[in-house]
Amino acid sequence: MFQAQVRVIYGDTDQMGVVYYANYLRYFELARSELLRAHGKSYREMEAEGFSLPVVEATCRYLAPARYEDLLLVGVEVPAVTRVTLTFRYQVTREGESEVLCTGSTIHACLGKSGRPARLPDWVAALVSPSTA
Amino acid sequence: MFQAQVRVIYGDTDQMGVVYYANYLRYFELARSELLRAHGKSYREMEAEGFSLPVVEATCRYLAPARYEDLLLVGVEVPAVTRVTLTFRYQVTREGESEVLCTGSTIHACLGKSGRPARLPDWVAALVSPSTA
Amino acid sequence: MFQAQVRVIYGDTDQMGVVYYANYLRYFELARSELLRAHGKSYREMEAEGFSLPVVEATCRYLAPARYEDLLLVGVEVPAVTRVTLTFRYQVTREGESEVLCTGSTIHACLGKSGRPARLPDWVAALVSPSTA
Amino acid sequence: MFQAQVRVIYGDTDQMGVVYYANYLRYFELARSELLRAHGKSYREMEAEGFSLPVVEATCRYLAPARYEDLLLVGVEVPAVTRVTLTFRYQVTREGESEVLCTGSTIHACLGKSGRPARLPDWVAALVSPSTA
Repeated sequence: MFQAQVRVIYGDTDQMGVVYYANYLRYFELARSELLRAHGKSYREMEAEGFSLPVVEATCRYLAPARYEDLLLVGVEVPAVTRVTLTFRYQVTREGESEVLCTGSTIHACLGKSGRPARLPDWVAALVSPSTA
Repeated sequence: MFQAQVRVIYGDTDQMGVVYYANYLRYFELARSELLRAHGKSYREMEAEGFSLPVVEATCRYLAPARYEDLLLVGVEVPAVTRVTLTFRYQVTREGESEVLCTGSTIHACLGKSGRPARLPDWVAALVSPSTA
Repeated sequence: MFQAQVRVIYGDTDQMGVVYYANYLRYFELARSELLRAHGKSYREMEAEGFSLPVVEATCRYLAPARYEDLLLVGVEVPAVTRVTLTFRYQVTREGESEVLCTGSTIHACLGKSGRPARLPDWVAALVSPSTA
Repeated sequence: MFQAQVRVIYGDTDQMGVVYYANYLRYFELARSELLRAHGKSYREMEAEGFSLPVVEATCRYLAPARYEDLLLVGVEVPAVTRVTLTFRYQVTREGESEVLCTGSTIHACLGKSGRPARLPDWVAALVSPSTA
């Protein structure tokens, strides 16, 4: 699983002393964006070519709290693609620990220049994790 | 369905010109908090009595984009409770329009003073929507 | 002073149990946007006419903390305009209380269609507070 | 000047296609937190010892926009301390470029266990930049 690093800042926490639940979706975005970049093309370049991947569904399960200054590893993989959608799956841990703090997924449509559904570019379709393809 | 109002600010949008996907979870929080307050007790008071309702799962389906300066109605109801969990369901529309922009749900554990699972206070358990009880 | 209302949500707080310092700039934006709307035209309409008011400077003084579920009043006024800039001044209190929690200001350039400095539209220039003009 | 790296995510941008003005205060927080950590002690440890450094004033000048996927360098230094306050100064650039996108500063009170003003710990007072001391 590809891993992105995130350092939890004060602004990510809430008064319970833990990361606010919506902020995991920000971490997920960071991770999938780095996954794309690690495969040779950035999401910014994809957009420049007329494609976009708007989120159509997001889910998140909160298993244990992340805290201020934690160094998080946000694992991300692509378990499935269809001709016009792409799914990312996420798993958040603390660096050096195995406990899973959070899991989640996002499903994205692929839109082309006209804003209409488009076929996923080949390089994106090729991101499907071998283990889950 | 109880409705809370939210005005979309610039800071809620992203460079696609629409509300960033994580921000709907903020709107959901605002709505469930106002629902509790409308039933006579605030979440702050609940916490003062030693209870908390941490989110254990959140889901969101994005059907159509909300935009800057939209006046949103965030509908919220409680379709189900168990002895120790509470579910909220959400639906976001623009004021004066019927199109649903987003639906979602959050599941909450009920924790007592010790931080251990506790029975939901009666007034919270009574929030279950008549139509779905 | 024109006043906008904001209810503090959990997501606005940090682990100190107070509103995170960056979020006051979000409250300021909400307030100045409502001020414009109260004067007959929204910022969205202004943009549609080719104008924008990007922030060139922001300051904020934190006098006392705002907390979860506080109902805040964000006062806003326009102490000064020049031909091509606009200043807003802010003051945050809790509803029904006189203690000032936060003061601040933002200075905005006025840009026209080309993205170049433009003369402020008359209706915006007319926002200058009588008391401070 | 100590430098922290930040990758701009979608969630940091607004519909102008640039980083939303409040988010620079988040970047500032990240940078000063890393500066402390680089000097051997984290802000979390400081808090555990009973100290806190609440922001009493923040300023930000926006010179040029940062954009999605930019890799930002957030420079931070301590130009001044008094017995009970600490000032940080910031400067944001893109990696590999000299253009300054944003400058800013934050002034912090030092509070001790009682929540009352306290003398800055020596290791923090020692952060003052040689060039500006």
